[in-house]
Amino acid sequence: MGSDREDAAVTGFRDDGAAALDWVAAYLEQLREYPVLSRVEPGEIRAALPPAPPDEPEPFAAVLEDLDRVLLPGLTHWQSPRFFAYFATTGSEPAILAELLAAALNQVGILWRTSPALQELEELTVDWLRQLFGLPEEFRGHIEDTASTGAVIALAVARRAAPSRRVVVASEHAHSSIEKACRLLELELRTVPVDEAFRMRAEALDLDRACAVVAAVGTTSTSAVDPVAKIADRCAEAGVWLHVDAAYAGSAAVCPELRHHFDGWERADSLVVNPHKWLGTPSDCSVLWTRHLADFRDTFSLVPEYLRSDDDVVNLSELSVPLGRRFRALKLWAVLRCYGRTGLQERIREHVRLAQLFAGWVRAEPGWEVYAPAPFSLVCFRLDAPDETNEELVERVNASGEIFVSHANLHDRFVLRLAIGNFRTTEDDVRLAWDVLRREATAISG
Amino acid sequence: MGSDREDAAVTGFRDDGAAALDWVAAYLEQLREYPVLSRVEPGEIRAALPPAPPDEPEPFAAVLEDLDRVLLPGLTHWQSPRFFAYFATTGSEPAILAELLAAALNQVGILWRTSPALQELEELTVDWLRQLFGLPEEFRGHIEDTASTGAVIALAVARRAAPSRRVVVASEHAHSSIEKACRLLELELRTVPVDEAFRMRAEALDLDRACAVVAAVGTTSTSAVDPVAKIADRCAEAGVWLHVDAAYAGSAAVCPELRHHFDGWERADSLVVNPHKWLGTPSDCSVLWTRHLADFRDTFSLVPEYLRSDDDVVNLSELSVPLGRRFRALKLWAVLRCYGRTGLQERIREHVRLAQLFAGWVRAEPGWEVYAPAPFSLVCFRLDAPDETNEELVERVNASGEIFVSHANLHDRFVLRLAIGNFRTTEDDVRLAWDVLRREATAISG
Repeated sequence: MGSDREDAAVTGFRDDGAAALDWVAAYLEQLREYPVLSRVEPGEIRAALPPAPPDEPEPFAAVLEDLDRVLLPGLTHWQSPRFFAYFATTGSEPAILAELLAAALNQVGILWRTSPALQELEELTVDWLRQLFGLPEEFRGHIEDTASTGAVIALAVARRAAPSRRVVVASEHAHSSIEKACRLLELELRTVPVDEAFRMRAEALDLDRACAVVAAVGTTSTSAVDPVAKIADRCAEAGVWLHVDAAYAGSAAVCPELRHHFDGWERADSLVVNPHKWLGTPSDCSVLWTRHLADFRDTFSLVPEYLRSDDDVVNLSELSVPLGRRFRALKLWAVLRCYGRTGLQERIREHVRLAQLFAGWVRAEPGWEVYAPAPFSLVCFRLDAPDETNEELVERVNASGEIFVSHANLHDRFVLRLAIGNFRTTEDDVRLAWDVLRREATAISG
Repeated sequence: MGSDREDAAVTGFRDDGAAALDWVAAYLEQLREYPVLSRVEPGEIRAALPPAPPDEPEPFAAVLEDLDRVLLPGLTHWQSPRFFAYFATTGSEPAILAELLAAALNQVGILWRTSPALQELEELTVDWLRQLFGLPEEFRGHIEDTASTGAVIALAVARRAAPSRRVVVASEHAHSSIEKACRLLELELRTVPVDEAFRMRAEALDLDRACAVVAAVGTTSTSAVDPVAKIADRCAEAGVWLHVDAAYAGSAAVCPELRHHFDGWERADSLVVNPHKWLGTPSDCSVLWTRHLADFRDTFSLVPEYLRSDDDVVNLSELSVPLGRRFRALKLWAVLRCYGRTGLQERIREHVRLAQLFAGWVRAEPGWEVYAPAPFSLVCFRLDAPDETNEELVERVNASGEIFVSHANLHDRFVLRLAIGNFRTTEDDVRLAWDVLRREATAISG
C-alpha cells in the first residue's frame, strides 16, 4: 500500500477514466441507434455473467468490455430521444459530470460538519429551485431519493401532528406510492373519485378522521391537475395536512405561462417535485419542501428537543430516515447553472409544444382519439378500436425498438401514453413516433 | 433542438468531461494536502454563492471553478487517507468511474423491463457478495441507500409477520437508526444492557411481545459483536425475527480468518452490510439480504398476491419503498471485479493489522489506554485523564487538519475513536495520527 502502488492506481485512473468518458460520449452520440426497449428475456443477462465473483483483480477495461458485450442489450434506453414511456427523463451532460465529481468526493452528509458544502449547497439549490418555481420564501427543502420516500416522510409528519386521525385522502388516480406509504405507516387510504378530466372531485372530499390529503399536480396516468386551491381551502378549515405531489409536472412551473396549473400549490404543507423527471437531472433527485420544518425535525430528529438551540444548524439527517446522504445537490446545481432559468424554460416549452403538436396529429387522424386533456407534455390517446387492438398496437410498436411508449387504464379503457421529457427529443423524433404508431396500426387492421 | 445543437453539446461534453476527469485525478492525487475536517463556519459556503439562480446558462467550467474556489474549503475529506472518524470509507477508482457510467445510462429500475440489466446485475452482484462472505445460498439481496432504510424495511416485514407484537429488542449500543425505524413504524424499542465488552447480554433478552431482535456485528461505538448465535437460538425458540446489522464490520467476512466473529449471522432473517463503508464503494450502497423474500414482497408489493405467478420476475420495487431505483449495482460490480476476492482480503487485512498496530502503541504508552476490544479496524482509546482533557484533545487534533478522529461515550467516559477503512491509508498515515495525538496531548498537559 506504499506510494508506488498509489501512483500506479492514479495513472491507471487517468487512463481508465479517459476510456470511460469516451464510452459515455460515444453512447450519448449513438442513442438513436439502440432499440429503446430492451429485447432480452428474463435471466438472459445474469446467465451471460459468471455466477461467482473473481478471485483475482481484473482491469477496469474488462468492466467496460462487458458493459458493451453483456449489459448493453439488457438496457432500456431511458436516455434515448425516442423514449416516450412513463415520464421521459434526461440525464443531462452537466449533471452526468457532476455525478462523477460527487462520487470522487464521496461526501457523506450526516452532521453539518461531516460536509458543510454538501449541506449548504443542498439547501441553496433547493432554494434556487423554489425561486424558479415561484414558491413562497418560507418553504424549506431537502433532497430525497424518490417521491415515494418523500410521501412516507411527509405523511409520517402529518400522522404525528394528528395522532388520533389515521386516514389519508387521495384521488383514485394518486400514485401507487401513496398506498405504499399508508401501508408502511399503518394509515388507511381513502380514495376520492375523479371527474371526466381525471381530476379529484373536491366536492367529494371526506375529511373525517383524516390526517392528510394528497393532491396531485400532474397525475401519473394522465398528468391531470387536482383542484389544489379548493382542496387547500378544505384542508385549512379542517386543520388537515396538505401534501402536493408534483413529481413530474412541477418542473413546468419554471415557465410563467404554465404557472396557472399550479394555483394553490403554494399553500401545501409539504410538496414534492422530482428534478430527475423533467429537469435534466439523472436519477435519483426528488425535492421535498415544507413550511413546517420544525414538525419534520420533531418527527425524525433523535436529538432531544431540550438539547437543541434555535441558532443550531439543522442537520439534514434530522429531517428524514437515512443518517448519511450523498452529494446529490451537486448535479442539481450543475443543471441549474449550465441551463439557467431561460435554458430550462426553453426545454419545457419545447416539450409542451411537441406534445400539443402530437395531440393535434392524433385528433386530426380518423380512427384515433386523444383520451384525456394534455396540460403538459404527456398525451393519452388510443385507436378507436377494442382494447385488445390497442394492446397489440403498444406491443408491436415497442417490439420494433424504434420508440417506447407506455399505457394506462382510463375509465376501463386501454389507453396509450406518449410522454415527452427528454432534452434530446426533437420534432423529428416525435414525427417518427407518430409514423411508427400509424404504420403498426395499419399493419394490425390490414 | 436540431442536430447541430446536439453535436455542439456532445463536443462540449468531451471537453468538459476531460476537465472534470482531470479535476478528479488531481483531487485524488492531492488528498493529503487538505485539512481533513472542514474549517468553515456555518453559513459560510452558502453566503459565498449567489442567493438566486442564474437566468442565463453558464459553462460547465464555471461549475468546476466554484467547486475549487467555494466548495472545496467546505468539504470534509472523507477520501483522505487521514480520515479516521466515524467509519472511514473509500470511493475507489473503479467505483467512481462506474458512477459516471451509471449517471450516463440513467437507468430507472421500476419493473424488470425498464432495465433488465440493472435488476439482474443487482441480483448477481449481491449474490457474489453473499458468496464472498460465506452466507447461505438461500439469502436473496437487494441494494438500499443506507442501513437506516434497510432497518425500516426489515422491521416493517417483521411487524407484518407478527401484528400483535409491537416491540423491537436491541442492545443499548444499537445504532440510532433502529430507534428511528421504531418511531416510523410505531414500534416500541426495548434495549438490552451490554457486558463489559459492550456486547448485548443475551441472558437479559426479554422477548415478551417482541416482533424482532436487532443484533449487531460491529456496533457503531466500539465495533462490538453481539452474541448472534445465542440470540438466534432465542429468536428461533420464540419465533421472533432476527435482523443483523453488520453495516460496517460485515465486509470483514471476506477474510476467512475473521469469519469467527460472524458466528450465527447466517441464521438471520434479514441482514445488512454496507459496501459503502468498508468495501471501496462510494455512498450510497447498502445491501439487505433476507431468507424470506416472499415476506418482503407481501409487505411492499402492490401487485395483489392472486395476480402473481411463481415464475414471474420479482421486480425490485416490490421489496422496498421507492418505485424507481438507480443503477447502484454497477459500482459494486466494478469493485468486486477490479479488486477481486484477494484484493479485498488484502485491504481488509491491512486495515485490521494497522488498527492492531495502533492499539499496541496506545497500550505501550504510559498515560494512555485502549478502552474497548478492537476486533476489526476501529480502536477506542483515551488519555488517562478527565473527560474534559480528552474532549480538548479531540478538538485540538481535528483543528490541526492533519487527521480527523471522532469520539464516543462509553460507560459515561469520553473516548476517542480511530477507524481505519480507507484503501489509501498507509502505515505512515497511522503513525502520523499517533504522532499528532501525542503532540497535542503533551501540549495540553504542558
